[in-house]
Amino acid sequence: MTGFAAVDVIIAKRDRRELTGEQIRWVIDAYTAGDVAEEQMSALLMAILLNGMTAAEIANWTTAMLHSGIRLDLTGVGRPTVDKHSTGGVGDKISLPLAPLVAACGAAVPQLSGRGLGHTGGTLDKMESIPGWRARLSPQEMTAQLAAVGAVICAASDDLAPADRKLYALRDVTGTVESIPMIAASIMSKKIAEGTESLVLDVKVGSGAFMKRAEHAAELARTMVELGAREGVRTTALLTDMSTPLGVAVGNAIEVAESVEVLAGGGPADVVELTLALAREMVALAGLDVDPADVLASGRAMDSWRAMVAAQGGDPDAPLPTPRFREIVVAQTTGVVSALDALAVGTAAWRLGAGRARREHDVQQAAGILCRAKPGDPIRVGQPLFELHTDTPELFQGALADLADAVTIASPGTVVRRSPLVMEIIRAV
Amino acid sequence: MTGFAAVDVIIAKRDRRELTGEQIRWVIDAYTAGDVAEEQMSALLMAILLNGMTAAEIANWTTAMLHSGIRLDLTGVGRPTVDKHSTGGVGDKISLPLAPLVAACGAAVPQLSGRGLGHTGGTLDKMESIPGWRARLSPQEMTAQLAAVGAVICAASDDLAPADRKLYALRDVTGTVESIPMIAASIMSKKIAEGTESLVLDVKVGSGAFMKRAEHAAELARTMVELGAREGVRTTALLTDMSTPLGVAVGNAIEVAESVEVLAGGGPADVVELTLALAREMVALAGLDVDPADVLASGRAMDSWRAMVAAQGGDPDAPLPTPRFREIVVAQTTGVVSALDALAVGTAAWRLGAGRARREHDVQQAAGILCRAKPGDPIRVGQPLFELHTDTPELFQGALADLADAVTIASPGTVVRRSPLVMEIIRAV
Repeated sequence: MTGFAAVDVIIAKRDRRELTGEQIRWVIDAYTAGDVAEEQMSALLMAILLNGMTAAEIANWTTAMLHSGIRLDLTGVGRPTVDKHSTGGVGDKISLPLAPLVAACGAAVPQLSGRGLGHTGGTLDKMESIPGWRARLSPQEMTAQLAAVGAVICAASDDLAPADRKLYALRDVTGTVESIPMIAASIMSKKIAEGTESLVLDVKVGSGAFMKRAEHAAELARTMVELGAREGVRTTALLTDMSTPLGVAVGNAIEVAESVEVLAGGGPADVVELTLALAREMVALAGLDVDPADVLASGRAMDSWRAMVAAQGGDPDAPLPTPRFREIVVAQTTGVVSALDALAVGTAAWRLGAGRARREHDVQQAAGILCRAKPGDPIRVGQPLFELHTDTPELFQGALADLADAVTIASPGTVVRRSPLVMEIIRAV
Repeated sequence: MTGFAAVDVIIAKRDRRELTGEQIRWVIDAYTAGDVAEEQMSALLMAILLNGMTAAEIANWTTAMLHSGIRLDLTGVGRPTVDKHSTGGVGDKISLPLAPLVAACGAAVPQLSGRGLGHTGGTLDKMESIPGWRARLSPQEMTAQLAAVGAVICAASDDLAPADRKLYALRDVTGTVESIPMIAASIMSKKIAEGTESLVLDVKVGSGAFMKRAEHAAELARTMVELGAREGVRTTALLTDMSTPLGVAVGNAIEVAESVEVLAGGGPADVVELTLALAREMVALAGLDVDPADVLASGRAMDSWRAMVAAQGGDPDAPLPTPRFREIVVAQTTGVVSALDALAVGTAAWRLGAGRARREHDVQQAAGILCRAKPGDPIRVGQPLFELHTDTPELFQGALADLADAVTIASPGTVVRRSPLVMEIIRAV
């Protein structure tokens, strides 16, 4: 013991005093070692959530979590390293086309990813619908693949920021997830530990996102950009709209299929737009002078995708899983789709089996929803709005209930103005 | 499960929503049963501490804790029942003369007491310095003694408000003790469960008290008076000064000796004053038409004391334990004592062995401090200020350090005005 009792640290934050760097290092180390009890840490987390943290406290907390594990050294890959992290949305498959695209531009993309929990999907769950593909790589395999292919999408190993893993599990059961300081520290400790030189953050705003309000998302973005700068990781954040799902497909295998369409030069306009916007920032941070749009058009991004999938045991030509049951929801009125609620669609897809309610559950690879009409699209009575996929037909009823009010249809001829997909870009000063 | 998840209850309070009676009953029951985890309850407690509770929430919380165990039935004792509870102070031995005095006035006093933790002493620790005396009585023994003697001081059995016992241990290690709603619910659930018809609360204010500020103490007092009224227990609260120790003796055996002096018609003026003030309120609530001062002067309170001690195996004539080592602190200047800090004296006595640092420790029966000069007393260089007692001489040094600034001496002839001992009386409306 270094002389700090856990209760003193809790009381300091409870009484709105700023925690010192020493207090924060001690409490994170002692918690990771099991010397600070779960019930003590949860009381501290609630005090942090309600009383907030200063920039210095957030930085110290992040550094302490970072130092609870190893920091990967990617200097041997021979290319500039740059990664992307999204705070999570509905239909957000951007990592899949983005990582091979930026690799094809000349960078190395060490995309350590997670699994889905709740209504937002997980990149690893999506990739695992590719037959043969495996998420677990050793650090040596990862470095070798980055050097050879330029892109890797894999699970983070347990020795990266282990304090964050333990804290996240605790926050999940104690109502202390929704804290901007804790979210920022959690994301940045893992991304800094991963060893990337540069990082682009996709901070989502809207009903389908964790942050419902733009000012909260902007605060989170600014906090993370500052944390990156402090630890020597060049960081840029994009605030992007998540009031409506990205693209058409929301699920696992169907999002892989849509990503391959984008790499082949097609795909939904919004997915292409966001992929290119993020790629441009990543390429700029990596110091490369290429236009990702040209690289995408050239087919070289598709080559990188195929190489990346194959390097992890996947067969890029194998057919993707298909659902045992489908159901179509059609429009009851004629007009123009004026809104499509991301949260409702995400929840319905989760309910069909695309997501998991508990960490230990499996997802259904073929479950999900195709959004057949997006905001701005004209629609006529009887035309399809949604196509629901599942292997478990008793799940249709709950998903249909979620979707009951998901679409708003305005009178024919209405001009629907969508807010811009990229709302703001926040760069380090 | 009744449909409430613990996380939903935590988030409701975190987001400043009022908890329903059903939510509170569920969370207390599930926590007592072990279905709500310690880390979930501690997050909820911190949210309660920081966001507060409405009167209805506090009442529901108290009732839920009350219903976690049994409620004693004292209707068979054949006298009106009335109890006193103090929020704890330094030198606060008032229960010892008070219980037999009020019994001698014709009431029955079911004084279920606790042990000391930290700088405030515990009534059971003090009584245990009487040779042979035992704190544990069965409910049958307690009722029989109340009928025969009219007073009992004993430990609360484990089946009174068990939820409170579990919660208190958790609050102690998670920095969530200092919550007025939780303090009020804790005290009142135990006192209501004890089966008393009436209750007088001694809410202490000042450096040696839990509540440092009068407005917080008044809020706590009002909350408890309302809780009593709701559950049919006639309740009055006295706000009393705890900026300076009560009486001369601070410890265990020495506080018993001082209590016996009061019962014999002597003793320090402040101890006599507070004993009589509390006794008058108790006698009034019990509907008895006697003046406690007359009963004290008659010697009948001493008879009740001797009967009460003997009924629990104690020998009222046995010599009390004496310390192995004593040390005297003398005045360095001549003048008038203008202040004597209760917290410093309480902490010093605790350090000498009169109190415990951890629940599982024992106390030294003979350890403590005699305050040889009180505010208002003239003092000359070389006259004793404190007499320190312990069985462990290596503890003197720390206690002397605590006492270094405990006394303020003003220039000779200064008139020292003390704030009144009883600051305010709060009665049910």
